[in-house]
Amino acid sequence: MQKHILPIRIYYEDTDVGGTVYHANYLKFFERARTESLRTLGFELGELLKNEDTGFVVSSIEVDFLQAAELDQLLYVVTEIIEVRHASIRYTQCLHRDTAEGTLLCRAKVRIACVDGQKRPRRIPKLLLVEIKK
Amino acid sequence: MQKHILPIRIYYEDTDVGGTVYHANYLKFFERARTESLRTLGFELGELLKNEDTGFVVSSIEVDFLQAAELDQLLYVVTEIIEVRHASIRYTQCLHRDTAEGTLLCRAKVRIACVDGQKRPRRIPKLLLVEIKK
Amino acid sequence: MQKHILPIRIYYEDTDVGGTVYHANYLKFFERARTESLRTLGFELGELLKNEDTGFVVSSIEVDFLQAAELDQLLYVVTEIIEVRHASIRYTQCLHRDTAEGTLLCRAKVRIACVDGQKRPRRIPKLLLVEIKK
Amino acid sequence: MQKHILPIRIYYEDTDVGGTVYHANYLKFFERARTESLRTLGFELGELLKNEDTGFVVSSIEVDFLQAAELDQLLYVVTEIIEVRHASIRYTQCLHRDTAEGTLLCRAKVRIACVDGQKRPRRIPKLLLVEIKK
Repeated sequence: MQKHILPIRIYYEDTDVGGTVYHANYLKFFERARTESLRTLGFELGELLKNEDTGFVVSSIEVDFLQAAELDQLLYVVTEIIEVRHASIRYTQCLHRDTAEGTLLCRAKVRIACVDGQKRPRRIPKLLLVEIKK
Repeated sequence: MQKHILPIRIYYEDTDVGGTVYHANYLKFFERARTESLRTLGFELGELLKNEDTGFVVSSIEVDFLQAAELDQLLYVVTEIIEVRHASIRYTQCLHRDTAEGTLLCRAKVRIACVDGQKRPRRIPKLLLVEIKK
Repeated sequence: MQKHILPIRIYYEDTDVGGTVYHANYLKFFERARTESLRTLGFELGELLKNEDTGFVVSSIEVDFLQAAELDQLLYVVTEIIEVRHASIRYTQCLHRDTAEGTLLCRAKVRIACVDGQKRPRRIPKLLLVEIKK
Repeated sequence: MQKHILPIRIYYEDTDVGGTVYHANYLKFFERARTESLRTLGFELGELLKNEDTGFVVSSIEVDFLQAAELDQLLYVVTEIIEVRHASIRYTQCLHRDTAEGTLLCRAKVRIACVDGQKRPRRIPKLLLVEIKK
Protein backbone atom coordinates (compact mmCIF):
# COMPACT_ATOMS: atom_id res chain seq x y z
CA MET A 1 0.00 0.00 0.00
CA GLN A 2 2.18 2.79 -1.33
CA LYS A 3 1.53 6.51 -1.33
CA HIS A 4 0.04 7.84 -4.52
CA ILE A 5 0.79 11.36 -5.73
CA LEU A 6 -1.39 13.38 -8.11
CA PRO A 7 -0.64 16.91 -9.35
CA ILE A 8 -3.60 19.30 -9.58
CA ARG A 9 -3.57 22.67 -11.32
CA ILE A 10 -5.93 25.35 -9.97
CA TYR A 11 -8.23 27.00 -12.53
CA TYR A 12 -10.83 29.75 -12.38
CA GLU A 13 -13.58 27.12 -11.97
CA ASP A 14 -12.02 26.09 -8.63
CA THR A 15 -11.96 29.52 -7.02
CA ASP A 16 -14.54 31.78 -5.38
CA VAL A 17 -15.02 35.48 -4.70
CA GLY A 18 -12.91 35.12 -1.55
CA GLY A 19 -9.92 34.90 -3.90
CA THR A 20 -8.98 31.32 -3.10
CA VAL A 21 -10.25 27.78 -3.82
CA TYR A 22 -13.88 27.13 -2.82
CA HIS A 23 -13.84 24.72 0.14
CA ALA A 24 -16.04 22.01 -1.38
CA ASN A 25 -13.74 21.74 -4.38
CA TYR A 26 -10.94 20.19 -2.33
CA LEU A 27 -13.20 17.13 -2.06
CA LYS A 28 -13.13 16.90 -5.85
CA PHE A 29 -9.34 16.91 -5.85
CA PHE A 30 -9.25 14.15 -3.25
CA GLU A 31 -11.69 12.09 -5.29
CA ARG A 32 -9.67 12.54 -8.49
CA ALA A 33 -6.66 11.26 -6.56
CA ARG A 34 -8.47 8.18 -5.26
CA THR A 35 -9.67 7.48 -8.80
CA GLU A 36 -6.14 7.80 -10.21
CA SER A 37 -4.67 5.61 -7.47
CA LEU A 38 -7.12 2.88 -8.55
CA ARG A 39 -6.24 3.45 -12.20
CA THR A 40 -2.56 2.98 -11.28
CA LEU A 41 -3.54 -0.47 -9.96
CA GLY A 42 -5.29 -1.24 -13.25
CA PHE A 43 -8.90 -0.45 -12.33
CA GLU A 44 -11.30 2.06 -13.80
CA LEU A 45 -14.50 3.03 -11.99
CA GLY A 46 -16.69 2.74 -15.09
CA GLU A 47 -15.42 -0.76 -15.86
CA LEU A 48 -15.72 -1.90 -12.26
CA LEU A 49 -19.38 -0.96 -12.34
CA LYS A 50 -20.07 -2.64 -15.71
CA ASN A 51 -18.00 -5.78 -15.25
CA GLU A 52 -18.02 -6.35 -11.49
CA ASP A 53 -21.24 -4.59 -10.42
CA THR A 54 -19.03 -2.67 -8.03
CA GLY A 55 -18.91 0.97 -7.10
CA PHE A 56 -17.74 3.09 -4.21
CA VAL A 57 -19.53 5.78 -2.26
CA VAL A 58 -18.03 8.18 0.25
CA SER A 59 -19.52 7.31 3.64
CA SER A 60 -17.69 9.84 5.78
CA ILE A 61 -15.12 12.55 5.47
CA GLU A 62 -13.20 14.76 7.88
CA VAL A 63 -11.33 17.70 6.44
CA ASP A 64 -9.06 20.29 8.03
CA PHE A 65 -8.60 23.34 5.86
CA LEU A 66 -5.26 24.79 6.98
CA GLN A 67 -4.28 27.21 4.25
CA ALA A 68 -6.09 28.24 1.10
CA ALA A 69 -4.94 27.38 -2.42
CA GLU A 70 -4.92 30.04 -5.13
CA LEU A 71 -5.39 30.40 -8.86
CA ASP A 72 -2.58 29.00 -11.04
CA GLN A 73 -0.97 27.09 -8.19
CA LEU A 74 0.22 23.56 -8.74
CA LEU A 75 -0.82 21.29 -5.89
CA TYR A 76 -0.08 17.69 -5.05
CA VAL A 77 -2.54 15.27 -3.48
CA VAL A 78 -0.77 12.59 -1.46
CA THR A 79 -3.09 9.62 -0.97
CA GLU A 80 -2.51 6.81 1.46
CA ILE A 81 -4.71 3.87 2.33
CA ILE A 82 -4.76 3.37 6.09
CA GLU A 83 -7.24 0.52 6.40
CA VAL A 84 -8.85 -2.01 4.07
CA ARG A 85 -11.85 -3.98 5.29
CA HIS A 86 -14.19 -6.39 3.49
CA ALA A 87 -16.50 -3.65 2.29
CA SER A 88 -14.76 -0.34 2.98
CA ILE A 89 -11.47 1.49 2.64
CA ARG A 90 -10.11 4.32 4.77
CA TYR A 91 -7.76 6.89 3.30
CA THR A 92 -5.65 9.76 4.52
CA GLN A 93 -5.23 12.42 1.87
CA CYS A 94 -3.08 15.53 2.08
CA LEU A 95 -2.90 18.48 -0.27
CA HIS A 96 0.49 20.16 -0.61
CA ARG A 97 1.61 23.23 -2.52
CA ASP A 98 4.34 23.27 -5.22
CA THR A 99 5.71 19.82 -4.40
CA ALA A 100 4.44 16.66 -2.73
CA GLU A 101 6.40 17.76 0.37
CA GLY A 102 5.44 21.44 0.10
CA THR A 103 3.29 23.45 2.51
CA LEU A 104 0.34 21.39 3.74
CA LEU A 105 -2.90 23.12 2.74
CA CYS A 106 -5.55 20.60 3.55
CA ARG A 107 -5.80 17.19 5.19
CA ALA A 108 -8.62 14.68 4.92
CA LYS A 109 -9.69 11.35 6.34
CA VAL A 110 -12.04 9.64 3.94
CA ARG A 111 -13.99 6.41 4.30
CA ILE A 112 -15.48 4.86 1.19
CA ALA A 113 -17.88 1.94 1.15
CA CYS A 114 -18.16 -0.69 -1.55
CA VAL A 115 -21.64 -0.96 -3.10
CA ASP A 116 -23.30 -2.74 -5.99
CA GLY A 117 -25.11 -1.06 -8.87
CA GLN A 118 -28.19 -0.62 -6.65
CA LYS A 119 -26.06 1.05 -3.96
CA ARG A 120 -26.41 -1.91 -1.60
CA PRO A 121 -23.31 -2.73 0.48
CA ARG A 122 -21.16 -5.48 -0.96
CA ARG A 123 -17.69 -6.95 -0.47
CA ILE A 124 -14.80 -5.51 -2.41
CA PRO A 125 -14.06 -7.90 -5.31
CA LYS A 126 -11.09 -10.14 -4.61
CA LEU A 127 -9.07 -9.14 -7.65
CA LEU A 128 -9.25 -5.52 -6.49
CA LEU A 129 -8.59 -6.37 -2.84
CA VAL A 130 -5.42 -8.25 -3.79
CA GLU A 131 -4.03 -5.32 -5.73
CA ILE A 132 -4.91 -2.76 -3.05
CA LYS A 133 -3.21 -4.78 -0.32
CA LYS A 134 0.03 -5.29 -2.26
CA MET B 1 -46.60 28.96 -24.07
CA GLN B 2 -46.22 31.50 -21.30
CA LYS B 3 -43.09 33.01 -19.87
CA HIS B 4 -41.76 31.26 -16.79
CA ILE B 5 -39.91 33.17 -14.08
CA LEU B 6 -37.50 31.65 -11.55
CA PRO B 7 -35.66 33.55 -8.82
CA ILE B 8 -32.02 32.55 -8.21
CA ARG B 9 -29.93 33.63 -5.25
CA ILE B 10 -26.15 33.89 -5.79
CA TYR B 11 -23.97 32.01 -3.30
CA TYR B 12 -20.21 31.61 -2.80
CA GLU B 13 -20.29 28.37 -4.83
CA ASP B 14 -21.38 30.37 -7.90
CA THR B 15 -18.57 32.92 -7.85
CA ASP B 16 -14.93 32.92 -8.89
CA VAL B 17 -11.76 34.83 -8.03
CA GLY B 18 -12.74 37.52 -10.54
CA GLY B 19 -15.33 38.60 -7.94
CA THR B 20 -18.41 37.72 -9.98
CA VAL B 21 -20.32 34.61 -11.07
CA TYR B 22 -18.24 32.00 -12.97
CA HIS B 23 -19.45 32.01 -16.58
CA ALA B 24 -20.31 28.30 -16.83
CA ASN B 25 -22.61 28.59 -13.82
CA TYR B 26 -25.14 30.68 -15.74
CA LEU B 27 -25.87 27.51 -17.71
CA LYS B 28 -26.85 25.84 -14.44
CA PHE B 29 -29.30 28.65 -13.67
CA PHE B 30 -30.86 28.32 -17.12
CA GLU B 31 -31.21 24.58 -16.67
CA ARG B 32 -32.83 24.95 -13.25
CA ALA B 33 -35.32 27.30 -14.89
CA ARG B 34 -36.16 24.87 -17.71
CA THR B 35 -36.61 22.14 -15.10
CA GLU B 36 -38.94 24.29 -13.02
CA SER B 37 -40.94 25.38 -16.07
CA LEU B 38 -41.58 21.67 -16.75
CA ARG B 39 -42.49 21.08 -13.12
CA THR B 40 -45.01 23.92 -13.39
CA LEU B 41 -46.63 21.92 -16.19
CA GLY B 42 -46.74 18.85 -13.96
CA PHE B 43 -43.64 16.99 -15.18
CA GLU B 44 -40.54 15.94 -13.30
CA LEU B 45 -37.39 14.88 -15.13
CA GLY B 46 -36.80 11.81 -12.98
CA GLU B 47 -40.36 10.55 -13.49
CA LEU B 48 -40.28 11.24 -17.23
CA LEU B 49 -37.24 9.02 -17.50
CA LYS B 50 -38.70 6.21 -15.36
CA ASN B 51 -42.26 6.24 -16.67
CA GLU B 52 -41.90 7.51 -20.24
CA ASP B 53 -38.30 6.51 -21.09
CA THR B 54 -37.84 10.17 -21.96
CA GLY B 55 -35.06 12.59 -21.23
CA PHE B 56 -33.67 15.80 -22.66
CA VAL B 57 -30.14 16.74 -23.61
CA VAL B 58 -28.85 20.18 -24.50
CA SER B 59 -27.85 20.04 -28.15
CA SER B 60 -26.74 23.63 -28.63
CA ILE B 61 -26.46 26.84 -26.69
CA GLU B 62 -25.60 30.43 -27.50
CA VAL B 63 -24.94 32.77 -24.61
CA ASP B 64 -24.20 36.48 -24.47
CA PHE B 65 -22.71 37.53 -21.16
CA LEU B 66 -23.58 41.21 -20.87
CA GLN B 67 -22.98 42.08 -17.25
CA ALA B 68 -21.69 39.98 -14.39
CA ALA B 69 -23.77 38.88 -11.42
CA GLU B 70 -22.37 39.16 -7.89
CA LEU B 71 -22.55 37.44 -4.53
CA ASP B 72 -25.85 37.85 -2.63
CA GLN B 73 -27.71 39.22 -5.64
CA LEU B 74 -31.19 37.98 -6.39
CA LEU B 75 -31.60 37.20 -10.09
CA TYR B 76 -34.55 36.18 -12.19
CA VAL B 77 -34.43 33.75 -15.08
CA VAL B 78 -37.13 34.47 -17.65
CA THR B 79 -37.72 31.40 -19.80
CA GLU B 80 -39.66 31.35 -23.03
CA ILE B 81 -40.23 28.54 -25.48
CA ILE B 82 -39.81 29.83 -29.03
CA GLU B 83 -40.23 26.61 -31.01
CA VAL B 84 -41.50 23.11 -30.33
CA ARG B 85 -40.78 20.36 -32.84
CA HIS B 86 -41.39 16.61 -32.73
CA ALA B 87 -38.12 15.87 -30.98
CA SER B 88 -36.69 19.18 -29.86
CA ILE B 89 -37.53 22.44 -28.11
CA ARG B 90 -35.91 25.84 -28.52
CA TYR B 91 -35.83 28.34 -25.66
CA THR B 92 -34.85 31.92 -25.11
CA GLN B 93 -33.70 32.51 -21.57
CA CYS B 94 -32.77 35.84 -20.01
CA LEU B 95 -31.19 36.56 -16.66
CA HIS B 96 -32.22 39.80 -14.97
CA ARG B 97 -31.07 41.46 -11.75
CA ASP B 98 -33.35 42.33 -8.79
CA THR B 99 -36.61 41.85 -10.70
CA ALA B 100 -37.77 39.95 -13.78
CA GLU B 101 -37.62 43.27 -15.66
CA GLY B 102 -34.34 44.42 -14.07
CA THR B 103 -30.98 44.92 -15.77
CA LEU B 104 -30.34 42.17 -18.32
CA LEU B 105 -27.17 40.28 -17.35
CA CYS B 106 -27.13 37.33 -19.68
CA ARG B 107 -29.17 36.03 -22.61
CA ALA B 108 -29.23 32.51 -24.00
CA LYS B 109 -30.69 30.55 -26.86
CA VAL B 110 -30.91 26.91 -25.94
CA ARG B 111 -31.95 23.92 -28.01
CA ILE B 112 -32.75 20.68 -26.22
CA ALA B 113 -33.34 17.34 -27.89
CA CYS B 114 -35.64 14.60 -26.68
CA VAL B 115 -33.90 11.25 -26.13
CA ASP B 116 -34.72 7.86 -24.66
CA GLY B 117 -32.88 6.21 -21.77
CA GLN B 118 -30.13 5.12 -24.16
CA LYS B 119 -29.74 8.70 -25.41
CA ARG B 120 -31.21 7.87 -28.82
CA PRO B 121 -33.39 10.59 -30.39
CA ARG B 122 -37.10 10.10 -29.82
CA ARG B 123 -40.33 12.08 -30.17
CA ILE B 124 -41.53 14.16 -27.27
CA PRO B 125 -44.35 12.18 -25.56
CA LYS B 126 -47.77 13.49 -26.52
CA LEU B 127 -48.97 14.22 -22.99
CA LEU B 128 -45.96 16.49 -22.55
CA LEU B 129 -46.29 18.06 -25.99
CA VAL B 130 -49.88 19.00 -25.31
CA GLU B 131 -49.03 20.77 -22.08
CA ILE B 132 -46.06 22.61 -23.55
CA LYS B 133 -48.09 23.92 -26.48
CA LYS B 134 -50.91 25.21 -24.30
CA MET C 1 -29.80 30.48 18.79
CA GLN C 2 -32.69 28.94 16.95
CA LYS C 3 -32.67 26.25 14.32
CA HIS C 4 -32.73 27.52 10.77
CA ILE C 5 -34.41 25.54 7.98
CA LEU C 6 -33.66 25.89 4.27
CA PRO C 7 -35.37 23.92 1.48
CA ILE C 8 -33.12 22.70 -1.35
CA ARG C 9 -34.33 21.30 -4.66
CA ILE C 10 -32.06 18.76 -6.41
CA TYR C 11 -31.22 19.51 -10.05
CA TYR C 12 -29.19 17.74 -12.74
CA GLU C 13 -26.16 19.86 -11.83
CA ASP C 14 -26.10 18.26 -8.36
CA THR C 15 -26.05 14.63 -9.49
CA ASP C 16 -23.41 12.27 -10.84
CA VAL C 17 -23.26 9.13 -12.96
CA GLY C 18 -23.92 7.05 -9.84
CA GLY C 19 -27.50 8.29 -10.07
CA THR C 20 -27.51 10.34 -6.88
CA VAL C 21 -26.11 13.63 -5.58
CA TYR C 22 -22.33 14.03 -5.91
CA HIS C 23 -20.88 13.92 -2.40
CA ALA C 24 -19.03 17.27 -2.52
CA ASN C 25 -22.26 19.06 -3.43
CA TYR C 26 -23.75 18.48 0.01
CA LEU C 27 -21.14 20.94 1.27
CA LYS C 28 -22.64 23.54 -1.06
CA PHE C 29 -26.10 22.95 0.42
CA PHE C 30 -24.74 23.35 3.94
CA GLU C 31 -23.02 26.58 2.97
CA ARG C 32 -26.16 28.00 1.35
CA ALA C 33 -27.95 27.26 4.61
CA ARG C 34 -25.33 29.02 6.76
CA THR C 35 -25.52 32.00 4.40
CA GLU C 36 -29.31 32.14 4.64
CA SER C 37 -29.26 31.79 8.42
CA LEU C 38 -27.05 34.90 8.51
CA ARG C 39 -29.35 36.70 6.09
CA THR C 40 -32.26 35.90 8.42
CA LEU C 41 -30.34 37.79 11.12
CA GLY C 42 -29.91 40.73 8.76
CA PHE C 43 -26.37 40.10 7.48
CA GLU C 44 -25.14 39.53 3.95
CA LEU C 45 -21.69 38.12 3.28
CA GLY C 46 -20.84 40.66 0.58
CA GLU C 47 -21.78 43.60 2.80
CA LEU C 48 -19.94 42.18 5.81
CA LEU C 49 -16.78 42.08 3.73
CA LYS C 50 -17.20 45.60 2.32
CA ASN C 51 -18.46 47.36 5.44
CA GLU C 52 -16.89 45.37 8.28
CA ASP C 53 -13.81 43.85 6.60
CA THR C 54 -15.18 40.55 7.82
CA GLY C 55 -15.46 37.19 6.13
CA PHE C 56 -15.73 33.56 7.13
CA VAL C 57 -13.75 30.55 5.99
CA VAL C 58 -14.52 26.91 6.67
CA SER C 59 -11.73 25.63 8.90
CA SER C 60 -12.92 22.06 9.40
CA ILE C 61 -15.78 19.83 8.44
CA GLU C 62 -16.93 16.33 9.36
CA VAL C 63 -19.63 14.77 7.24
CA ASP C 64 -21.48 11.46 7.53
CA PHE C 65 -23.20 10.49 4.30
CA LEU C 66 -26.02 8.20 5.41
CA GLN C 67 -28.32 7.97 2.42
CA ALA C 68 -28.06 9.51 -1.01
CA ALA C 69 -30.33 12.23 -2.35
CA GLU C 70 -31.80 11.97 -5.83
CA LEU C 71 -32.87 14.17 -8.73
CA ASP C 72 -36.06 16.21 -8.15
CA GLN C 73 -36.13 15.57 -4.42
CA LEU C 74 -36.89 18.40 -2.06
CA LEU C 75 -34.51 18.42 0.88
CA TYR C 76 -34.31 20.48 4.04
CA VAL C 77 -31.11 21.66 5.67
CA VAL C 78 -31.53 22.10 9.41
CA THR C 79 -28.79 24.37 10.74
CA GLU C 80 -27.95 24.84 14.39
CA ILE C 81 -25.17 26.82 16.01
CA ILE C 82 -23.59 24.79 18.80
CA GLU C 83 -20.79 27.10 19.87
CA VAL C 84 -19.85 30.73 19.32
CA ARG C 85 -16.36 31.88 20.23
CA HIS C 86 -14.56 35.19 19.68
CA ALA C 87 -13.34 34.26 16.24
CA SER C 88 -15.15 31.09 15.24
CA ILE C 89 -18.55 29.41 15.11
CA ARG C 90 -19.39 25.73 15.24
CA TYR C 91 -22.48 24.37 13.52
CA THR C 92 -24.36 21.12 13.29
CA GLN C 93 -26.17 20.76 9.99
CA CYS C 94 -28.51 17.97 8.97
CA LEU C 95 -30.02 17.23 5.60
CA HIS C 96 -33.49 15.69 5.61
CA ARG C 97 -35.72 14.44 2.81
CA ASP C 98 -39.24 15.72 2.05
CA THR C 99 -39.65 17.58 5.34
CA ALA C 100 -37.38 19.08 7.99
CA GLU C 101 -38.13 15.96 10.09
CA GLY C 102 -37.90 13.52 7.17
CA THR C 103 -35.32 10.78 6.64
CA LEU C 104 -31.85 11.97 7.63
CA LEU C 105 -29.55 11.81 4.59
CA CYS C 106 -26.43 13.58 5.71
CA ARG C 107 -25.07 15.13 8.90
CA ALA C 108 -22.23 17.60 9.24
CA LYS C 109 -20.21 19.38 11.91
CA VAL C 110 -18.75 22.55 10.51
CA ARG C 111 -16.36 25.03 12.07
CA ILE C 112 -15.96 28.40 10.43
CA ALA C 113 -13.35 31.01 11.34
CA CYS C 114 -13.74 34.75 11.14
CA VAL C 115 -11.15 36.48 8.95
CA ASP C 116 -10.50 39.92 7.54
CA GLY C 117 -10.21 40.77 3.85
CA GLN C 118 -6.61 39.49 3.84
CA LYS C 119 -7.75 36.20 5.37
CA ARG C 120 -6.08 36.95 8.70
CA PRO C 121 -7.96 35.75 11.81
CA ARG C 122 -10.09 38.42 13.45
CA ARG C 123 -12.83 38.70 16.07
CA ILE C 124 -16.41 38.42 14.99
CA PRO C 125 -17.85 41.98 14.89
CA LYS C 126 -19.95 42.76 17.95
CA LEU C 127 -23.13 43.67 16.09
CA LEU C 128 -23.04 40.22 14.47
CA LEU C 129 -22.10 38.43 17.67
CA VAL C 130 -25.06 39.96 19.48
CA GLU C 131 -27.53 38.79 16.86
CA ILE C 132 -26.08 35.28 16.64
CA LYS C 133 -26.27 34.79 20.40
CA LYS C 134 -29.87 35.94 20.68
CA MET D 1 -1.10 31.22 -33.84
CA GLN D 2 -0.73 27.49 -33.49
CA LYS D 3 -3.27 24.97 -32.28
CA HIS D 4 -3.00 24.10 -28.62
CA ILE D 5 -3.92 20.64 -27.34
CA LEU D 6 -4.90 19.80 -23.76
CA PRO D 7 -5.80 16.32 -22.46
CA ILE D 8 -8.73 16.15 -20.00
CA ARG D 9 -9.66 13.12 -17.92
CA ILE D 10 -13.33 12.69 -17.00
CA TYR D 11 -14.06 12.19 -13.28
CA TYR D 12 -17.22 11.60 -11.24
CA GLU D 13 -17.46 15.34 -10.53
CA ASP D 14 -17.95 15.98 -14.27
CA THR D 15 -20.87 13.62 -14.79
CA ASP D 16 -24.60 13.72 -14.07
CA VAL D 17 -27.43 11.27 -13.48
CA GLY D 18 -27.90 11.00 -17.26
CA GLY D 19 -24.72 8.91 -17.25
CA THR D 20 -22.56 11.35 -19.21
CA VAL D 21 -20.79 14.68 -18.69
CA TYR D 22 -23.03 17.52 -17.46
CA HIS D 23 -23.32 20.02 -20.31
CA ALA D 24 -22.09 23.10 -18.43
CA ASN D 25 -18.87 21.31 -17.52
CA TYR D 26 -17.63 21.35 -21.11
CA LEU D 27 -17.26 25.10 -20.65
CA LYS D 28 -14.85 24.41 -17.80
CA PHE D 29 -12.75 22.18 -20.05
CA PHE D 30 -12.62 24.88 -22.73
CA GLU D 31 -11.57 27.44 -20.16
CA ARG D 32 -8.81 25.20 -18.77
CA ALA D 33 -7.53 24.87 -22.33
CA ARG D 34 -7.50 28.64 -22.95
CA THR D 35 -5.67 29.09 -19.64
CA GLU D 36 -3.06 26.48 -20.56
CA SER D 37 -2.58 27.92 -24.04
CA LEU D 38 -1.72 31.25 -22.37
CA ARG D 39 0.61 29.49 -19.95
CA THR D 40 2.38 27.90 -22.92
CA LEU D 41 3.08 31.44 -24.13
CA GLY D 42 4.49 32.34 -20.71
CA PHE D 43 1.48 34.05 -19.14
CA GLU D 44 -0.47 33.18 -16.01
CA LEU D 45 -3.89 34.68 -15.31
CA GLY D 46 -3.11 35.51 -11.68
CA GLU D 47 0.10 37.33 -12.60
CA LEU D 48 -1.52 39.20 -15.48
CA LEU D 49 -4.05 40.59 -13.04
CA LYS D 50 -1.48 41.54 -10.39
CA ASN D 51 1.24 42.90 -12.67
CA GLU D 52 -0.65 44.18 -15.71
CA ASP D 53 -4.10 44.93 -14.23
CA THR D 54 -5.40 42.67 -16.98
CA GLY D 55 -8.03 39.97 -16.97
CA PHE D 56 -10.31 38.26 -19.43
CA VAL D 57 -14.03 37.63 -19.28
CA VAL D 58 -16.07 35.42 -21.59
CA SER D 59 -18.38 37.73 -23.52
CA SER D 60 -20.12 35.16 -25.71
CA ILE D 61 -20.09 31.46 -26.38
CA GLU D 62 -21.74 29.16 -28.90
CA VAL D 63 -21.56 25.45 -28.23
CA ASP D 64 -22.74 22.45 -30.24
CA PHE D 65 -22.98 19.31 -28.15
CA LEU D 66 -22.62 16.49 -30.67
CA GLN D 67 -21.89 13.42 -28.59
CA ALA D 68 -21.64 12.98 -24.85
CA ALA D 69 -18.43 12.20 -22.99
CA GLU D 70 -18.37 9.52 -20.32
CA LEU D 71 -16.64 8.68 -17.05
CA ASP D 72 -12.97 7.66 -17.33
CA GLN D 73 -12.64 8.85 -20.92
CA LEU D 74 -9.58 10.77 -21.97
CA LEU D 75 -10.52 13.79 -24.08
CA TYR D 76 -8.50 16.36 -25.96
CA VAL D 77 -9.39 20.03 -26.24
CA VAL D 78 -8.02 21.53 -29.46
CA THR D 79 -7.88 25.31 -29.13
CA GLU D 80 -7.34 27.70 -31.99
CA ILE D 81 -7.36 31.48 -32.02
CA ILE D 82 -9.30 32.74 -35.01
CA GLU D 83 -9.20 36.48 -34.42
CA VAL D 84 -7.27 38.86 -32.23
CA ARG D 85 -8.49 42.43 -31.84
CA HIS D 86 -7.32 45.26 -29.59
CA ALA D 87 -9.50 44.23 -26.68
CA SER D 88 -10.86 40.80 -27.52
CA ILE D 89 -9.91 37.34 -28.79
CA ARG D 90 -12.05 34.82 -30.63
CA TYR D 91 -11.39 31.12 -30.31
CA THR D 92 -12.61 27.91 -31.87
CA GLN D 93 -12.37 25.00 -29.46
CA CYS D 94 -13.11 21.37 -30.20
CA LEU D 95 -13.35 18.44 -27.84
CA HIS D 96 -12.25 15.07 -29.20
CA ARG D 97 -12.28 11.59 -27.71
CA ASP D 98 -9.20 9.38 -27.19
CA THR D 99 -6.91 11.45 -29.41
CA ALA D 100 -6.76 15.04 -30.66
CA GLU D 101 -8.12 13.71 -33.99
CA GLY D 102 -10.65 11.35 -32.39
CA THR D 103 -14.45 11.56 -32.55
CA LEU D 104 -15.61 15.16 -32.22
CA LEU D 105 -17.84 15.47 -29.15
CA CYS D 106 -18.33 19.18 -28.77
CA ARG D 107 -17.42 22.35 -30.65
CA ALA D 108 -17.39 25.90 -29.33
CA LYS D 109 -16.86 29.43 -30.53
CA VAL D 110 -15.76 31.61 -27.66
CA ARG D 111 -15.17 35.34 -27.51
CA ILE D 112 -13.27 36.74 -24.57
CA ALA D 113 -12.88 40.42 -23.76
CA CYS D 114 -9.90 42.04 -22.08
CA VAL D 115 -10.77 43.95 -18.89
CA ASP D 116 -8.94 45.66 -16.06
CA GLY D 117 -9.24 44.77 -12.38
CA GLN D 118 -12.51 46.73 -12.18
CA LYS D 119 -13.90 44.78 -15.16
CA ARG D 120 -13.76 47.81 -17.47
CA PRO D 121 -12.77 47.10 -21.07
CA ARG D 122 -9.11 47.66 -21.83
CA ARG D 123 -6.60 46.89 -24.58
CA ILE D 124 -4.70 43.64 -24.47
CA PRO D 125 -1.18 44.44 -23.17
CA LYS D 126 1.37 44.61 -25.99
CA LEU D 127 3.72 41.96 -24.59
CA LEU D 128 0.81 39.51 -24.58
CA LEU D 129 -0.46 40.60 -27.99
CA VAL D 130 2.94 39.99 -29.54
CA GLU D 131 3.14 36.46 -28.21
CA ILE D 132 -0.41 35.57 -29.21
CA LYS D 133 0.10 36.75 -32.78
CA LYS D 134 3.34 34.82 -33.28
